[in-house]
Amino acid sequence: MDALLPPRGTAQWQAADAAHFLHPFTDFGALAAQGSRIITRAEQLYLWDSEGQRLFDAMSGLWCVNVGYGQQALIDAATRQLQQLPFYNAFFQTATPPAIELAELLAELTPPQFRHAFFTGSGSEGNDTVVRMVRRYWDLQGQPDRRILISRNNAYHGSTMAGASLGGMKSMHAQGGLPIPGIVHIDQPYLAAYRRQRPAAAGLDEEEFGLIAARWLEKKVLELGPHRVAAFIGEPVQGAGGVIVPPASYWPEIQRICDRYDILLVSDEVITGFGRTGHWFGCETQGFRPDLMTFAKGVTSGYIPLGGVMVGERVARTLIELGGEFEHGYTYSGHPVACAVAVANLQLIREQRLVERVHDDVGPYLAEQFATLAGHPLVGDVQTSGLMGALLLVREAAGQSPFRPDQPVGMVCRGHCFAQGLIMRAVGDRMIVAPPLIISRAQIDEMMALIRHCLDLTLADVHSRGWLA
Amino acid sequence: MDALLPPRGTAQWQAADAAHFLHPFTDFGALAAQGSRIITRAEQLYLWDSEGQRLFDAMSGLWCVNVGYGQQALIDAATRQLQQLPFYNAFFQTATPPAIELAELLAELTPPQFRHAFFTGSGSEGNDTVVRMVRRYWDLQGQPDRRILISRNNAYHGSTMAGASLGGMKSMHAQGGLPIPGIVHIDQPYLAAYRRQRPAAAGLDEEEFGLIAARWLEKKVLELGPHRVAAFIGEPVQGAGGVIVPPASYWPEIQRICDRYDILLVSDEVITGFGRTGHWFGCETQGFRPDLMTFAKGVTSGYIPLGGVMVGERVARTLIELGGEFEHGYTYSGHPVACAVAVANLQLIREQRLVERVHDDVGPYLAEQFATLAGHPLVGDVQTSGLMGALLLVREAAGQSPFRPDQPVGMVCRGHCFAQGLIMRAVGDRMIVAPPLIISRAQIDEMMALIRHCLDLTLADVHSRGWLA
Repeated sequence: MDALLPPRGTAQWQAADAAHFLHPFTDFGALAAQGSRIITRAEQLYLWDSEGQRLFDAMSGLWCVNVGYGQQALIDAATRQLQQLPFYNAFFQTATPPAIELAELLAELTPPQFRHAFFTGSGSEGNDTVVRMVRRYWDLQGQPDRRILISRNNAYHGSTMAGASLGGMKSMHAQGGLPIPGIVHIDQPYLAAYRRQRPAAAGLDEEEFGLIAARWLEKKVLELGPHRVAAFIGEPVQGAGGVIVPPASYWPEIQRICDRYDILLVSDEVITGFGRTGHWFGCETQGFRPDLMTFAKGVTSGYIPLGGVMVGERVARTLIELGGEFEHGYTYSGHPVACAVAVANLQLIREQRLVERVHDDVGPYLAEQFATLAGHPLVGDVQTSGLMGALLLVREAAGQSPFRPDQPVGMVCRGHCFAQGLIMRAVGDRMIVAPPLIISRAQIDEMMALIRHCLDLTLADVHSRGWLA
Repeated sequence: MDALLPPRGTAQWQAADAAHFLHPFTDFGALAAQGSRIITRAEQLYLWDSEGQRLFDAMSGLWCVNVGYGQQALIDAATRQLQQLPFYNAFFQTATPPAIELAELLAELTPPQFRHAFFTGSGSEGNDTVVRMVRRYWDLQGQPDRRILISRNNAYHGSTMAGASLGGMKSMHAQGGLPIPGIVHIDQPYLAAYRRQRPAAAGLDEEEFGLIAARWLEKKVLELGPHRVAAFIGEPVQGAGGVIVPPASYWPEIQRICDRYDILLVSDEVITGFGRTGHWFGCETQGFRPDLMTFAKGVTSGYIPLGGVMVGERVARTLIELGGEFEHGYTYSGHPVACAVAVANLQLIREQRLVERVHDDVGPYLAEQFATLAGHPLVGDVQTSGLMGALLLVREAAGQSPFRPDQPVGMVCRGHCFAQGLIMRAVGDRMIVAPPLIISRAQIDEMMALIRHCLDLTLADVHSRGWLA
């Protein structure tokens, strides 16, 4: 029995939950019938539920708790700022010290083209800002026809109307009349999917494919007319799409194409920012130089909501010198408590050298350990980038051939993980992890043992369900 | 000298601010040249800046700090929850106690048709959710042609692409390609503006005008075809538009029209929620029964960012019983720290009977005091609703006639207010207040004395600038 257990029992929490709480991305009716799992406390990279069961959180909450749970420096920063000044806005020629400190620190930690921060409350709001900012930039540059943003299938850029439109999730587009106009999509740089559609591509290697995939952008730009294209946006590594790590040749070629046609390049760093891939930002790992970067999640390690956009000098100088009033912002743009926690979080990441740790130590160790899973009969492919990792589940008997759509192997595997005390996410047939950056080698070993056990349990299920026939 | 003053001086804060922080709704270049005012701490309804000057915050931060600054119960709730569980998501059939408690408490405090809450990180994200949710509702009802949302000129519904599109601010629409399709606007219920455009309307009284303005909705519905209209959205009292209090006849007639054409009615309660108008929600003050309510700001008194949508049973039952997965949500939907602070905040409002206080005591007292300003030579009109108040500044010599566009009397008055230690907002020629609900009668007197003094200073300026000629 957990001494910190809240006063209600699981069944009572579940009843109140089912009666009143509409969860994000959920079948409300099905969840109400089944009952939620109630997460009551956390420490480091472990969660506990209302039954006292411990869970190894290999997803950092939702890609955000980079420094792990229970970090006293962040808690103290929040408490201090709440006492001092829990809120003030930055609309009317006023500013608060935490917002200034965070903008200054971000200018220091981000690549050199970034000297200015625009704050929002989330990554979604950050991507909404990107759309309005790039169009404003081109208006001010005297090229008002540059309205179109190009994004990619299977991208995730948030869930506002604009964010979900930038994203390439068909199921999201199907609800609510999306995408909004002026946003188009090209295909993602995912070789395994490409090979499935084109058997002739079997012999293609990653680097060749990276150039092919990047040139889909050039083809689309020429089709639309370069004078109509405002920006290209992408996650350095597609996250919610299933940790799709692009070939190393992909992003440099994207950079070349954007440069050639004078198109703004936007890196959505909501997941890849703040050390996740072994550099401070994913664009550094992938070798490109964005004009704008969206951030959120890891900036506060999720302790308090915060997001924003780093505005590169090309765009910032135009807005500052020619723009007049930028007619956009949020009540919580520069929220002092969120910014104070972000400053404490980034200082902790820097002082504890967590980015270097991912780059030099636990990142390579995760890659090495994940590689050993390639021998498992269910595992068709393994990818990692820093502390992001993905396994592609395939049908044993047929080698690389995928499970059928009516064989939800990912959900089966995910169910075993939860039951065994491991939070691992399923995206279709890809099983993904993104553990806190504080994870140790011993904890990676602990996670790997759980993953192996769950793969074995899944394999047994796959056999007994006859999915290999 | 303030003992809590941060270690940097004003000039240093201003330099770092100008170098790195792009403020919301700001002319970046002009602000950098001028320098921000640095707000460093707050207590109750007073702020202090980096020069040690005290400011009376008559705007509750940005319409949000309903319980005032420094409320220990909210600070403690945040600290406790940060220790216990600073973040966990609600995406994958999991929930956290604070999110459940808040959903349950909101179901109790909101009008009886509301039993379910969908959480977001802000009011903007809440209004994005509204668009996606009403369209999803009509799809599930087998009426997919109902896509259009009707809103109003001068409305404010946030700053995402969808929020700014729902809003009726022309200056926002001019940047970024807004509004998005499927959103149309009718005129606002603002008699003073109507009279300016139509001299023949001089004799019209408020109640007659309320019916006329509401019937602009009916006209628009019939013009579009009722089978194409999904919802009507409005703030019970337009806030950022300048505290436009509608005639009492307006909202009941809107309700009749929505009922008649089977149109969903959405109340944006981001500003009017949680006691501001003397009831828990503005729709109660104005006498209508919405199907959805957007909330934010006052739900946490701004201490931690949080927003959401209350989903009435008509919509909720359809989504739950027929919907399958609702493909929408945010990382911070149900953020445990934000929800814990919201619960503490709402309990405080309830225990201290702040809503009743606004309704029975300080609201009527503010109305009475504001009414005395009608005798001032610059004041053409006075409106209040609970603890929202507005003065319309007009040219003395010409009675009700407005200042010219090149006579920014509101900004002049606002400048005097700031210099005299009063934060009062200017919206065009309307000077507005929305002080914390904890304000006392003595503090209202203090505020009124400052307002009168600033009106006199403004009048002197108006004279010396020759604006009355």
